[in-house]
Amino acid sequence: MSKLRVAVVGARGRIGSEAVRAVEAAEDMELVAALGRGDRLETLVEAGAQVAVELTTPASVMGNLDFCVRHGIHAVVGTTGWTEDRLAQLGASLDASPETGVLIAPNFSIGAVLTMAFAQRAARYFESVEVIELHHPNKADAPSGTATRTAQLIAAARAEAGLGPQPDATVTALDGARGADVDGVPVHSVRLRGLLAHQEVLLGDEGETLTIRHDSLHHSSFMPGVLLGVRRVVAAPGLTFGLEHFLDLG
Amino acid sequence: MSKLRVAVVGARGRIGSEAVRAVEAAEDMELVAALGRGDRLETLVEAGAQVAVELTTPASVMGNLDFCVRHGIHAVVGTTGWTEDRLAQLGASLDASPETGVLIAPNFSIGAVLTMAFAQRAARYFESVEVIELHHPNKADAPSGTATRTAQLIAAARAEAGLGPQPDATVTALDGARGADVDGVPVHSVRLRGLLAHQEVLLGDEGETLTIRHDSLHHSSFMPGVLLGVRRVVAAPGLTFGLEHFLDLG
Amino acid sequence: MSKLRVAVVGARGRIGSEAVRAVEAAEDMELVAALGRGDRLETLVEAGAQVAVELTTPASVMGNLDFCVRHGIHAVVGTTGWTEDRLAQLGASLDASPETGVLIAPNFSIGAVLTMAFAQRAARYFESVEVIELHHPNKADAPSGTATRTAQLIAAARAEAGLGPQPDATVTALDGARGADVDGVPVHSVRLRGLLAHQEVLLGDEGETLTIRHDSLHHSSFMPGVLLGVRRVVAAPGLTFGLEHFLDLG
Amino acid sequence: MSKLRVAVVGARGRIGSEAVRAVEAAEDMELVAALGRGDRLETLVEAGAQVAVELTTPASVMGNLDFCVRHGIHAVVGTTGWTEDRLAQLGASLDASPETGVLIAPNFSIGAVLTMAFAQRAARYFESVEVIELHHPNKADAPSGTATRTAQLIAAARAEAGLGPQPDATVTALDGARGADVDGVPVHSVRLRGLLAHQEVLLGDEGETLTIRHDSLHHSSFMPGVLLGVRRVVAAPGLTFGLEHFLDLG
Repeated sequence: MSKLRVAVVGARGRIGSEAVRAVEAAEDMELVAALGRGDRLETLVEAGAQVAVELTTPASVMGNLDFCVRHGIHAVVGTTGWTEDRLAQLGASLDASPETGVLIAPNFSIGAVLTMAFAQRAARYFESVEVIELHHPNKADAPSGTATRTAQLIAAARAEAGLGPQPDATVTALDGARGADVDGVPVHSVRLRGLLAHQEVLLGDEGETLTIRHDSLHHSSFMPGVLLGVRRVVAAPGLTFGLEHFLDLG
Repeated sequence: MSKLRVAVVGARGRIGSEAVRAVEAAEDMELVAALGRGDRLETLVEAGAQVAVELTTPASVMGNLDFCVRHGIHAVVGTTGWTEDRLAQLGASLDASPETGVLIAPNFSIGAVLTMAFAQRAARYFESVEVIELHHPNKADAPSGTATRTAQLIAAARAEAGLGPQPDATVTALDGARGADVDGVPVHSVRLRGLLAHQEVLLGDEGETLTIRHDSLHHSSFMPGVLLGVRRVVAAPGLTFGLEHFLDLG
Repeated sequence: MSKLRVAVVGARGRIGSEAVRAVEAAEDMELVAALGRGDRLETLVEAGAQVAVELTTPASVMGNLDFCVRHGIHAVVGTTGWTEDRLAQLGASLDASPETGVLIAPNFSIGAVLTMAFAQRAARYFESVEVIELHHPNKADAPSGTATRTAQLIAAARAEAGLGPQPDATVTALDGARGADVDGVPVHSVRLRGLLAHQEVLLGDEGETLTIRHDSLHHSSFMPGVLLGVRRVVAAPGLTFGLEHFLDLG
Repeated sequence: MSKLRVAVVGARGRIGSEAVRAVEAAEDMELVAALGRGDRLETLVEAGAQVAVELTTPASVMGNLDFCVRHGIHAVVGTTGWTEDRLAQLGASLDASPETGVLIAPNFSIGAVLTMAFAQRAARYFESVEVIELHHPNKADAPSGTATRTAQLIAAARAEAGLGPQPDATVTALDGARGADVDGVPVHSVRLRGLLAHQEVLLGDEGETLTIRHDSLHHSSFMPGVLLGVRRVVAAPGLTFGLEHFLDLG
């Protein structure tokens, strides 16, 4: 079987250099180009890249993707800053190149994506649910974006299943004890030296609890998700937003 | 909306009496009969039962179900001891009463069923996976039936996804340290005073782990599953084996 | 070896009847009296009780203990409502009967008491510490009294060791996300159907975390502590407040 | 307050270079020398080192410590390979320099040392206890040395308290399911991609469990223990074996 010809764009950043290593280590891929700031995009064509992993900045990503799509190079994108306008503009490019696929993923950690997907599916079957996220103490926002998104997905699933408010007999509470309220789902943020990024969804009903926990122990944790994206995007023309669409959860 | 008319057969056992309480407490159900050993099955018909919850013994279950199916009463069955012969015999009864539904569930705990389902779905995305089950010290078998079944489902999912053996560089080990081998998945059994029934599936890959944990803290934990079975079986003619078929996991 | 002669006062309440069962089951004890409301205290003397387990109400406890101490009967007390005045009054009784011992314990769960003791000892060695307590959703207060007390002990230990405020770079937070502030220690309260009473202390420093978790899965969990109190109080004249003083933690 | 003058011997290895960084970052210490293979030990004297952190090899450690002790330089030693002969020889050197202190620690992780100390203290109060250790899959031995040592300490504490064998009604078991037997304490070893080094001690009794868990998420986790050793060894003449002797657990 011939190997997938993969390029990394933004190859000299911390994440980019991890991506270079991951592609090189993958037995079914060949790294054909590794571009940094100032390198010519034409290299992608000359190297015969089939897929580009795009890990640059919001300022560069639109130009890079426009080039890729025009040349029929599929793309797996970790760069952030997506708005409806930008997605519409990218969609128009893709309409003109209907066989090319682009995957944009806010989170490449398979464990984080599965945690969200499972929590969403389980939510309708439990009377109670809360989210605890735990991070290093240098984090600026609380709750984390992933925890907020998880709580929103859970709340939507509860609403769709016709569940009412959660049981809670609290009458006297210290301010903050019961966590932040995200669409009716309590979210608790722990900040602890020694931790990296962790999330726990606790679901409870009569006599039993179900806990889904994701621990990210190293920044390399998103690499299996990037490789999975590369393997799947070549057969997924058009725009795919979110790695969950490439996971078989049926 | 009229309430579902539900009967409990085997109502005087520990589990049966919990089922009686659960049906009485459910707002969308009415308990119309509660039969113990020696009571006449005709009571089910006279009471107008739509669904019978069958919680007796392997010696009684076939006769009870034959009666129910002949009279168009749906059944939710927690009694054990099913063989291929028995299932075939029940299938023949159902063929003659094509609008009647029977649910047989080896495990009515929604948390346990979801743990198995999620572990099976996640398995293909992680290089490593192990199962730890924890029970009270009066349990006679190790691993638990649920843990063995979970490991088998995981192993099958790994095989289907083309995953090879798990990484394990162990060269010197005390006997038993690495657990029991169930189709290549290590299973560890903890027996601890104070516990009831708990199971944890640990999945790991580059830089991250995903943990799915089920805690059963009280024997009432299977009641939400029984009620869910009652609500769904009335619209599921024929034989359904396993509560997972009544959960929406898509 | 002769058995300890033990009485239970308040034997017909839920906790009292558990205590009766526990004393009967203990191989080194003999249950010599079980008094309920209206029974005569003289029975304790007639039965030759060496230790009385006092599980009544704030309205009865002072009279019961006065009787016990005057007759040289040691006491293990679970009844609440202690004030400085009441403790002083009990102390005066004990001064007049210098060989008699009384143990008053706000919490008889050995696991809960050890969790507090270990958290207090570990606190000085970790830059970060937070407390998560998890209870059934019928609980009226948040955080639990045990969690608040645990956080206070931790805060005092940090102050004594000269530790400053915990690291926390949070700049934008949803209200409540970072928990309640108890003397500088964040405390998070989870309320979940299916749980009973659980507490987790998380300590973190450079590259590592230490977690101490107590799970109370059944109301019987305080019985081993009551029995330990009975065994130790006979050799501990005077007033002892808190089960931790009877645990060997040195 | 003048700063402690600290040297690192073995400064160019992975652990040694972490120690260099940790000493440099400590506000109460000054790094006065960092010696690698081939550097002259006399540098320690010339630099006025008060404490040497010794992180070399079993082949070098005896000579290095002999030099330090003769020159009144305290030492904190992470190098392994200690035998009774070697300890006796070091003891003789110390007898001739009675004001000098040497700390040898098999484990500098404060979290790991506290886990062992707490497990040992709690063991006498619980009927059941098991150990689960979890490591990356490249580890060659199972159980880990720390888990074996922890189980031995627990077993000794149980024996001292007069506890009998643990309750376990298992009659049919798959080979290995119940773990390795270390002096009557079951130990389970999990090997999972994504993990580093983790250990959990589970203690259980009537209605409650106590769990003590240590997570080592980065190799830097032993640095706080090294710094604590440096601060304490200057006031602890003679030989100290084990970091636990420098922790206040009373």
